[in-house]
Amino acid sequence: MRESIRVFAPATIANVVCGYDILGLAVDAPGDEVIMRKRSEPGVIITKITGDDGRLPLDASKNTVSASVEHYLRHVGRPDVGIEIELHKQMPIGSGLGSSSASTVAGLFAINAMLGNPLSKMELVPFAMKGEELACGTGHADNVAPAILGGFVLIKSYEPLDIIKLPYPEELHCAIVFPEVDVPTRDARRMIREKIALKDAVTQWGNIAGLVSGLFMKDLGLIGRSMKDVLIEPVRSILIPDFHRMREIAMINGAISFGISGSGPSVFAFTKDPDTSVKITKAIQQHLSKLNIGSQAYTSAVNADGPKILD
Amino acid sequence: MRESIRVFAPATIANVVCGYDILGLAVDAPGDEVIMRKRSEPGVIITKITGDDGRLPLDASKNTVSASVEHYLRHVGRPDVGIEIELHKQMPIGSGLGSSSASTVAGLFAINAMLGNPLSKMELVPFAMKGEELACGTGHADNVAPAILGGFVLIKSYEPLDIIKLPYPEELHCAIVFPEVDVPTRDARRMIREKIALKDAVTQWGNIAGLVSGLFMKDLGLIGRSMKDVLIEPVRSILIPDFHRMREIAMINGAISFGISGSGPSVFAFTKDPDTSVKITKAIQQHLSKLNIGSQAYTSAVNADGPKILD
Repeated sequence: MRESIRVFAPATIANVVCGYDILGLAVDAPGDEVIMRKRSEPGVIITKITGDDGRLPLDASKNTVSASVEHYLRHVGRPDVGIEIELHKQMPIGSGLGSSSASTVAGLFAINAMLGNPLSKMELVPFAMKGEELACGTGHADNVAPAILGGFVLIKSYEPLDIIKLPYPEELHCAIVFPEVDVPTRDARRMIREKIALKDAVTQWGNIAGLVSGLFMKDLGLIGRSMKDVLIEPVRSILIPDFHRMREIAMINGAISFGISGSGPSVFAFTKDPDTSVKITKAIQQHLSKLNIGSQAYTSAVNADGPKILD
Repeated sequence: MRESIRVFAPATIANVVCGYDILGLAVDAPGDEVIMRKRSEPGVIITKITGDDGRLPLDASKNTVSASVEHYLRHVGRPDVGIEIELHKQMPIGSGLGSSSASTVAGLFAINAMLGNPLSKMELVPFAMKGEELACGTGHADNVAPAILGGFVLIKSYEPLDIIKLPYPEELHCAIVFPEVDVPTRDARRMIREKIALKDAVTQWGNIAGLVSGLFMKDLGLIGRSMKDVLIEPVRSILIPDFHRMREIAMINGAISFGISGSGPSVFAFTKDPDTSVKITKAIQQHLSKLNIGSQAYTSAVNADGPKILD
C-alpha cells in the first residue's frame, strides 16, 4: 500500500440544462484536492480542511469524504487500514458546481489508488453516491459520475444504475459564474413541482434527445438549440439574481447555450473557444458587480478524464 | 412535367416505445402505393382506392392524400396542374403502423417527383403533417417524418419544426404483429393523462437519452434496455389483447425489445436478424389465434431511404 497521495477531482455541471437528474459533465477548473496519508491506527480521520470558511465538519463520521472512504474500506474488506485526510477546497461550497462531489470523488479515487485500484472508476460511483446522500439528502449521480469518469455522462437509469459516457465536440468550452448568493440544494429541489404537464415533458425529452444527438454528431448548433428547459429552470431561476439578463449577456457575447449549473446559483455557458468564455464571464461579472453582488468566475475546457493524481 | 408515376411509401413505427411524439422509424414492409397521372383539367381527383374495404373517402376534399397534394400544389404555385390518383392500400387502416402517413407521403412524394422535385424531402414534412391533422385530428410528425426521410427520425421540436436523422445498427430487424382489434388513434390519445409525475418523466428521459445513445453507438444491448415506457404503455396496453403475454413471447424468442407501434394495436419487436423476427411473429400469431384473434404479421429491415419510385 502506498504511503501517501495527492489527488485533484473536478467540479461538475449537473443537468446540462435539459437533462435534469440524468446528465452531467466535468470541467478542468475549479476542483478540490485531497491529500491522504497512511497511519498506523485503523480508521479514517480528517486532520485538516482549508478553503471552506469553517463550514465543513472535521468529525470523520459527519464529513462526506471520510464517511465515503470508510464505507469503501468496509466494502473492500480493509477495515484494518488507517488513513488521515487533508481536504483542500478550491471551489465554493453551495455553488451548484458539485462541490461535495468533487471532495468525495477525490477521496475515493485517492484511497482506491493507494490500495492499488481494486475497484474500477465505474465501481466507485455507488460509493460516491452514498456521500451525496449524506451531503444533499439524495444520492444522485449527476455530479459524482462525471467527476469520477470525466467528460459528459448520461445516467440512463438509477435502478439498476446504468451509466453511459457520451462523446462531445473537442472545442467545447465552458464559462462559469458563481454569484455569491445562497441557494441550498435541498431548497432548490423542494421548489420543483412533483406533477408536470405531459406536453412539457414531451418538449423536454425532445430537447434531451437533441442534446445527446448533438454531442454524438459534434454539432454545436444542435447542442445549443437543444439546451432549453421548460420545467426546472423557470422555477429555479427565481432564486438566481437577474438570471434572464445574465442569459442575454452570455448570448450577446457569443454563447452557444446558457443555463443553471446543477441547482444553482452558478450559471454556465457553452462556448466554442476560451476567448469567448473569458469575454462572457467578464461581462456577467461586470453586470453582477453593478448590482453589488460578488461573484467568482471560471473558464474551462471539458475535463476528459476525471480525477488526477498530483503526487 | 412527367405523365405518370407509381410510388411506394413505407409503414412506420412511431414512439419506438420510450420516445412518445418525438421518435419514429420506417420499415421496408408493409407500405402503400400511389399511382398518379396527369390530366388536362386542373384539380386533384381520386379515381380508385383498393385495399381499404371501402373505408376511405373518394371525395378528394376529404381524402388525406388528395387534400395534401392539393395543399402542396397551391403552395408551389401550380393550381393549374390536373392530377388523378389511384391509392392502393397494402397495409391495414387503424393498425398503428402509420397507414394514413404512408398514403399521404406516397402522394406528396409522387407529385413532387412529377414536378421535378421543387421541394426537398425535409420540406415535404409540413405538408404531410397537414394530412395527419385531417386523418387523426393532430398534426404529428412521428409517422410522416420517418415515412418521408427513411430510417430513424427524431422530431427534436415542433415549434420550430426541427427534425434530425439518427443512425442505427444495420442488422436491426423488426417483427410486427397487428392483432385485428379496433383502437382508433383519437381514443388512444384521449386515454393518456395530461399530468404526469416528474419522477416518471425523469425515468422516461433517461431511457430516451439511452435509446438515442444506443442508436449512435450501435449498441443493441443499450437499445434494448432503454426501450421501456413507464408513462404511455401502461395506459395504452389496456386496449391491446394480452399485451404482456405477447411481450413475454417476444422476449423468450430472442427479441431485443418489444412494445406498441404508435397508438397500437400493432406491436413490434426489434431483433438482430430476419430469422428471429420470423420466429417471434409466428409465436405471437399462434398465441393470438388460440384467443380467436385474427392477426397480420410483417418482418422487415429498417427502411433506410423512405419512398421509392416503382415506375
